[in-house]
Amino acid sequence: MDHFTPNPANSSPLTPLTFLERAAIAYADSISIRYNRTSFTWSQTHRRCLQLASSLSSLALGTRHVISVLSPNTPQTYELHFAVPMSGAILNNLNTRLDHNTLSVLLRHSESKLVFVHRHSLSLLLRAISTFPPNTPRPFLVLITDDTLAAHPNILDTYDGLLSKGDPGFQWVRPNSEWDPITLNYTSGTTSSPKGVVHSHRSTFLMTLASLVDWSMPKQPIYLWTLPMFHSNGWTFPWGIAAVGGINVCARKINAPTVYRLIESHRVTHMCAAPVVLNMLVTFPKPLNHVVHVLTGGSSPPATILTRAEELGFVVSHGYGMTETCGVMVSCAWRREWNRFPATERARLKARQGVMTVAMTEVDVVEPESGNSVKRDGLTIGEIVVRGACVMLGYLKDESATWQCVKKNGWFYTGDMGVIHEDGYLEIKDRSKDVIISGGENLSSVEVEAVLYTHPAVTEAAVVARPDYYWGETPCAFVRLKEGLERRPSEKEVVEYCRERLPHFMVPKTVVFKEDLPKTSTGKILKHVLRMDAKAMGSLATPLLLPTHPHAVLISRM
Amino acid sequence: MDHFTPNPANSSPLTPLTFLERAAIAYADSISIRYNRTSFTWSQTHRRCLQLASSLSSLALGTRHVISVLSPNTPQTYELHFAVPMSGAILNNLNTRLDHNTLSVLLRHSESKLVFVHRHSLSLLLRAISTFPPNTPRPFLVLITDDTLAAHPNILDTYDGLLSKGDPGFQWVRPNSEWDPITLNYTSGTTSSPKGVVHSHRSTFLMTLASLVDWSMPKQPIYLWTLPMFHSNGWTFPWGIAAVGGINVCARKINAPTVYRLIESHRVTHMCAAPVVLNMLVTFPKPLNHVVHVLTGGSSPPATILTRAEELGFVVSHGYGMTETCGVMVSCAWRREWNRFPATERARLKARQGVMTVAMTEVDVVEPESGNSVKRDGLTIGEIVVRGACVMLGYLKDESATWQCVKKNGWFYTGDMGVIHEDGYLEIKDRSKDVIISGGENLSSVEVEAVLYTHPAVTEAAVVARPDYYWGETPCAFVRLKEGLERRPSEKEVVEYCRERLPHFMVPKTVVFKEDLPKTSTGKILKHVLRMDAKAMGSLATPLLLPTHPHAVLISRM
Repeated sequence: MDHFTPNPANSSPLTPLTFLERAAIAYADSISIRYNRTSFTWSQTHRRCLQLASSLSSLALGTRHVISVLSPNTPQTYELHFAVPMSGAILNNLNTRLDHNTLSVLLRHSESKLVFVHRHSLSLLLRAISTFPPNTPRPFLVLITDDTLAAHPNILDTYDGLLSKGDPGFQWVRPNSEWDPITLNYTSGTTSSPKGVVHSHRSTFLMTLASLVDWSMPKQPIYLWTLPMFHSNGWTFPWGIAAVGGINVCARKINAPTVYRLIESHRVTHMCAAPVVLNMLVTFPKPLNHVVHVLTGGSSPPATILTRAEELGFVVSHGYGMTETCGVMVSCAWRREWNRFPATERARLKARQGVMTVAMTEVDVVEPESGNSVKRDGLTIGEIVVRGACVMLGYLKDESATWQCVKKNGWFYTGDMGVIHEDGYLEIKDRSKDVIISGGENLSSVEVEAVLYTHPAVTEAAVVARPDYYWGETPCAFVRLKEGLERRPSEKEVVEYCRERLPHFMVPKTVVFKEDLPKTSTGKILKHVLRMDAKAMGSLATPLLLPTHPHAVLISRM
Repeated sequence: MDHFTPNPANSSPLTPLTFLERAAIAYADSISIRYNRTSFTWSQTHRRCLQLASSLSSLALGTRHVISVLSPNTPQTYELHFAVPMSGAILNNLNTRLDHNTLSVLLRHSESKLVFVHRHSLSLLLRAISTFPPNTPRPFLVLITDDTLAAHPNILDTYDGLLSKGDPGFQWVRPNSEWDPITLNYTSGTTSSPKGVVHSHRSTFLMTLASLVDWSMPKQPIYLWTLPMFHSNGWTFPWGIAAVGGINVCARKINAPTVYRLIESHRVTHMCAAPVVLNMLVTFPKPLNHVVHVLTGGSSPPATILTRAEELGFVVSHGYGMTETCGVMVSCAWRREWNRFPATERARLKARQGVMTVAMTEVDVVEPESGNSVKRDGLTIGEIVVRGACVMLGYLKDESATWQCVKKNGWFYTGDMGVIHEDGYLEIKDRSKDVIISGGENLSSVEVEAVLYTHPAVTEAAVVARPDYYWGETPCAFVRLKEGLERRPSEKEVVEYCRERLPHFMVPKTVVFKEDLPKTSTGKILKHVLRMDAKAMGSLATPLLLPTHPHAVLISRM
């Protein structure tokens, strides 16, 4: 056999941006986006993205620079998933639920030169930038408005203003290599060591296709954006919906009545939703008059929620991924024969994470010490490790953190603990020790502890997850106060202290003062003991304590 | 932005072989293959492939050597798409319709060390090997039997014999690079310059996923193998059906009653079929009692066939590919609004080749001289060029032929001529000048001419396509005989002469003696003039002249 090498015709870099070019032909006059009373077609979306990419490019901000977005799920946020990388820049989707301190850290860490900001997040962003140290360069701002708004002194332009200056015939900037970065997403950052996950054109391309295959996505689905696009780039579906020419139904605010109204009025066929959103939908139920396929993930969905969602007419698929793996790397591939089982058994099976998706090379659960695969008995717990196209390039400016999870042996160590059942299906038993998942948001207990330690009355602190009927988990802080204090702060005061320094979702909902925290002989706090204590407390929210007005549910978190 | 490079966890090579490992877990007890009264589950297929790969590996035939397969669509042929590359070897699927001379050329050109041969092709293969020059190494043979058959002196083992010696715990040979070769397919070879198309693990992986997305393949489809797997590796569906855990319904012989019987008894949901097979099905029609999705391609399907197939209940998708592009690189993406059009208009639209599939980078039609894109007017004809992951590594042992179509400018030149319509859809107007597509088989007019020139009475010969109602095209030879011959051969004698030296499907069905062939001033035969002459003759087969017994139709070609 000859020795063959890549040739000029077969080695053009993989990139999900080509899906938009294809959609502009194959689905030219079909609707691409619906948002309130606005709608676009795929040829319009293609043209708009080229125009915006052209304008961004003519700003001459450099090569491979970072452009941030702080916006809910608007058409503009969707377009930026194409327009930003088409200009040669890297897309940095920021969580709109962060506080100004965290945003300030992330904007400086990413050296973002331009921020697209929705007008509802503008004051937050301006406050974040106001905390920049002197002589630190400030990013340009471009304002995303639902309607046209007068310019503001700090703002370079409005979105549509910038777009209208661009050339729709722009030759977009193709990556030089499929390993070139396309996105940057922060998974933490309130402390001094932000973790910025960088993905390549290759990994996003491959995970997009794998997710379409895994979900058996038909052509021209009607896709409702309940999942924020800033969560791991909407699990690749901004690109995926272009690949299949679907309709992106966008909504700025998500609550049960809105979701049900949009499902009905647009005849939505598909949506992604974290378990907390599913919980919201089953808490304020409304039976569907057509099938809606839901992909859930981000944390393990309780079996009861799955059962109740399916009773309403949702067909739920369950996937497991993390920002570091670009999207759904493992999914609970459904076996036809399981349909025979009763609903509770079906829900139990579906709550398992499952089998690797098609673009992965291998998934395993290994003993932490030896690195050997655990027994496939559904009992032996080990760390979940994966390898394949989905794994990130690395953490921005943090080689050491990168090599802590990307090991030389070819595996990415997820930090999550799990088992493999006899049938080969993976199930998570314990998320990474330091991660608490509250209302679909991952938060780092270490970062909350870091804030607690800055409190003048605190000498020791440990934050663990407390199970919650509604949010899945909430942060629970065990705190040891200093001795001989003139005045001991109340639990409420400690919560208030955190609220001033942390995004809302990271603030401990429970504070417990303890004389002594359980420790190992070497002085390390035994978090698993505290976790059991927190578990024993039960849920803060109970079905009876849930908000009674459905509109109230998620608005407070947007 | 840091400079990131591929890391150990994200750079494991892409390969379609992982789909089988996944299927063995996700679809363990579901049926993988049905063939007559035999069936297997995915865990059995996985185990059998590992066993066979283990046995092949223990034969120690070297690294990256070629293993050939000469067999119809049996379970074994299917398994070999995994087992051969899992042993580290390269799969060479041979067309069972070739003659012994061609087979002999190809086996020697590929240096194939082992041939899996179905007992129905055994005598053909033995004859091919008997023509090897002395001192040329002969391949080992492994016999594929429907039932167990006594060993034969030339045969190393039977398929099941070899398989049973293997270890199901075998650690299969993963590619070192995703650019490593996985398959070899010959597109010609009766002359001294066989064209062996080599594809990589990467291109087959990507085209498999792209084909699944393009056809919106659901989970666990019931897929009928009418398309021979030796045709461009079954357009990637051997791997694709594993990726979605479907059922492979295999059949050794294909004719209309068999296809309809299998569709009914297995409740087939999907099948690939060349236009000639669709034609067979509409010629002996039987309305379906459930929807069957058909992917057609290989040559342009006449609009009338599309219309009649849809009337019977087939939902036809149309794709365009070639062996050099691994599978369907362009497909006629269907727009929902076209459903409103009358049937004839729908068929006209569907007969167009369409838009690039999702793993392609670009498809264009260019002026042959300037290389510029033609006008998108549906009228200006140019050469179809493509680039992207689907393009082959190259032709085996033929750098010059490789560089004739893989150009330094980054494009693969298909040799096919086409137009781009105003809506961006591609349509083929003329296949490559030297290719005739008869009954789903591509044949090279140049190779038929080469045989004609060896006839002692022939001084000039040109072979072109004659349109045919049934076969699409048949080869038509225009021949100028030598002057002063003692005896002029008859047309029938010339046909007989070719039949002894060419595969059946390549033999001219029409021979026309001419005093003089039309030529340019420099003496080059004007084939387009002859093509018009052949067109004016009309179809050899007419609806009235078709075989009256449906079983007769395709058996003669197997």
